[in-house]
Amino acid sequence: MNYRARKSRAARAAKTAGVDGLLVTHLPDVRYLSGFTGSNAALVLVGGRSVLFTDGRYTAQAKEEAAGTKVVIAPKPAVTAACEWLAEAGVKRCGFDATQTTVSSFEAMRKAVPAKVRRGMFVAVEPLVAALRQVKDADEIERIRAAATLGCQLFDEALGYLRPGMTELEVAATLEHSARKAGAEAMSFETIVASGERSALPHGRASLAKLPKRGFVTMDFGVVLDGYMSDMTRTVHLGKSSPEERDVYDAVLEAQEAAVLAVAPGVSAGEVDEAARSVLRRVELDKWFTHSTGHGVGLEIHEGPRLAAKQTQRLEPGMVITIEPGVYMPGSFGLRIEDMVLVTAKGHEVLTPSVKAWIEL
Amino acid sequence: MNYRARKSRAARAAKTAGVDGLLVTHLPDVRYLSGFTGSNAALVLVGGRSVLFTDGRYTAQAKEEAAGTKVVIAPKPAVTAACEWLAEAGVKRCGFDATQTTVSSFEAMRKAVPAKVRRGMFVAVEPLVAALRQVKDADEIERIRAAATLGCQLFDEALGYLRPGMTELEVAATLEHSARKAGAEAMSFETIVASGERSALPHGRASLAKLPKRGFVTMDFGVVLDGYMSDMTRTVHLGKSSPEERDVYDAVLEAQEAAVLAVAPGVSAGEVDEAARSVLRRVELDKWFTHSTGHGVGLEIHEGPRLAAKQTQRLEPGMVITIEPGVYMPGSFGLRIEDMVLVTAKGHEVLTPSVKAWIEL
Repeated sequence: MNYRARKSRAARAAKTAGVDGLLVTHLPDVRYLSGFTGSNAALVLVGGRSVLFTDGRYTAQAKEEAAGTKVVIAPKPAVTAACEWLAEAGVKRCGFDATQTTVSSFEAMRKAVPAKVRRGMFVAVEPLVAALRQVKDADEIERIRAAATLGCQLFDEALGYLRPGMTELEVAATLEHSARKAGAEAMSFETIVASGERSALPHGRASLAKLPKRGFVTMDFGVVLDGYMSDMTRTVHLGKSSPEERDVYDAVLEAQEAAVLAVAPGVSAGEVDEAARSVLRRVELDKWFTHSTGHGVGLEIHEGPRLAAKQTQRLEPGMVITIEPGVYMPGSFGLRIEDMVLVTAKGHEVLTPSVKAWIEL
Repeated sequence: MNYRARKSRAARAAKTAGVDGLLVTHLPDVRYLSGFTGSNAALVLVGGRSVLFTDGRYTAQAKEEAAGTKVVIAPKPAVTAACEWLAEAGVKRCGFDATQTTVSSFEAMRKAVPAKVRRGMFVAVEPLVAALRQVKDADEIERIRAAATLGCQLFDEALGYLRPGMTELEVAATLEHSARKAGAEAMSFETIVASGERSALPHGRASLAKLPKRGFVTMDFGVVLDGYMSDMTRTVHLGKSSPEERDVYDAVLEAQEAAVLAVAPGVSAGEVDEAARSVLRRVELDKWFTHSTGHGVGLEIHEGPRLAAKQTQRLEPGMVITIEPGVYMPGSFGLRIEDMVLVTAKGHEVLTPSVKAWIEL
């Protein structure tokens, strides 16, 4: 990973935002800029300099992971040590991310610097690092691709063991065990296995409910490989389906494919959302599509851009997003289909090519 | 779970703190007070009333889980809807938890209410719900006990399959698969399996390193059952040990047992920490004990109280804490031993009774 280039980009963005230093405390941002993966850290960027503050648990790890960044093991809270350093370095206006800084942390930042420089020293700037992270570099795309590919393997494998009577939890346990054996550090989020009537729950965590003889099974899951996450959803049908089930599936699939096809540089996030939503509107299913169409994925499971109605942000090459429309009819059934899609210079590439056609097991 | 009693206690604590309403946005706090487990929520408590705000994904789930709380499905951010409601309800001073509220969320709260009531409306109060959550009620202790017991079973089972040449990741995958099959919703945190030289890393996530023929294996893991977490660590030795390894193990075990014995109502968190630290100091190992002795556990893996040097907080019956001293000698080896301990009226009860005596496999 080219941490030097990332730190340079962040420093430039800070300069553009009108600050002469940047305080980074959100851990995925710290990892993105320095490589450090510990659970306690604050990173400062000032001009060409970068310093990472952490504690004694991470002495060896910080030096190894954040090799290109000066490391300070502080006997006090990392953010306090970082702010004291900033004041001593003469930084007058230091940017911070107000969406990732608590009110009490902000108070601690202020208290860490002398009263005479406190006023105006900490400036809430747009989430600069989060913005950089939306556009993945080649190293990141490689890792995300590996995570997405493993996700597809896990789904393909699941087609071999899904059967009525198995509990949702057994499905999740089997899938997760395969993921771990294949080297996943963790799952990206709590695995969703929602079957039968529970398929109408958009976020039905795997339960002790048994897979039905007839009905949908929605699986939404992801793995973490080398820090990067995957996220995909497939819905399959067990046993003979009703014409309504088939119709709704076809509509969701058409909506999902329409949104994938809409993905290209320069297209707005809202247009991609509308591409899915309009298909469902045409068949009067849009009122059951109660969430947004997708989100960015990377070191975190939910990153920008947000693909929702009226979002004006334009897609850019290097963004990795999910496309995941769904229909949920309470008390009846529901389903969702989700891919991860890379925005390329010419259009898009689907990173999760597992079959989406109707599957009846 | 007696959500009504919890909401009453929170409302009383708010009154004592001098506010006439409470805004709760930290999700484990929302769950604690209402039962709702969704990923987007804001809860307000005003007098005897409570209202939960969430979005359309959770219509069915919120009504089911938060049966004793009025649910509002808001077409806008939950926190915005909650603050609009507070202003309309005539709340003059609303408490919020500054340690769980971002600077930008605080700005959104202010903007959601009319300018004429904004000034002084939102008051940063001590984390009231977090304070209540430190003392577990009977329902919670039952769930934590179940999670801790499952943890012990997983360790006992691991003694049967740990062997040289197996990767740390295989150990973690096997343990986690057993956990899931036994009904765990998730692991409490990324499973730590640190073997050989890696045992000197206090937080060595399971890697592709192979368990050595001779050396320590530290396993630190926990499960989530019904929302409540367990956390335990055991260190075993593979093959023949050196006298130094055995001496350090005995010292850590003595330190751990001394700290467990010190646990009783009225004792300060710092005294418990010192009970462990003084044992290691006596044998000049304290400089390698680079973290605190323990922390509270419940709906989150790290809750209060914090068991560290000089912490004056007194233990109370119903608190559930970890006792986990360790010694880490970079480049050589390390080890940690950790129990979960319930503070009882008379003293304490260890919730993780798995063997701690020296084990050589």
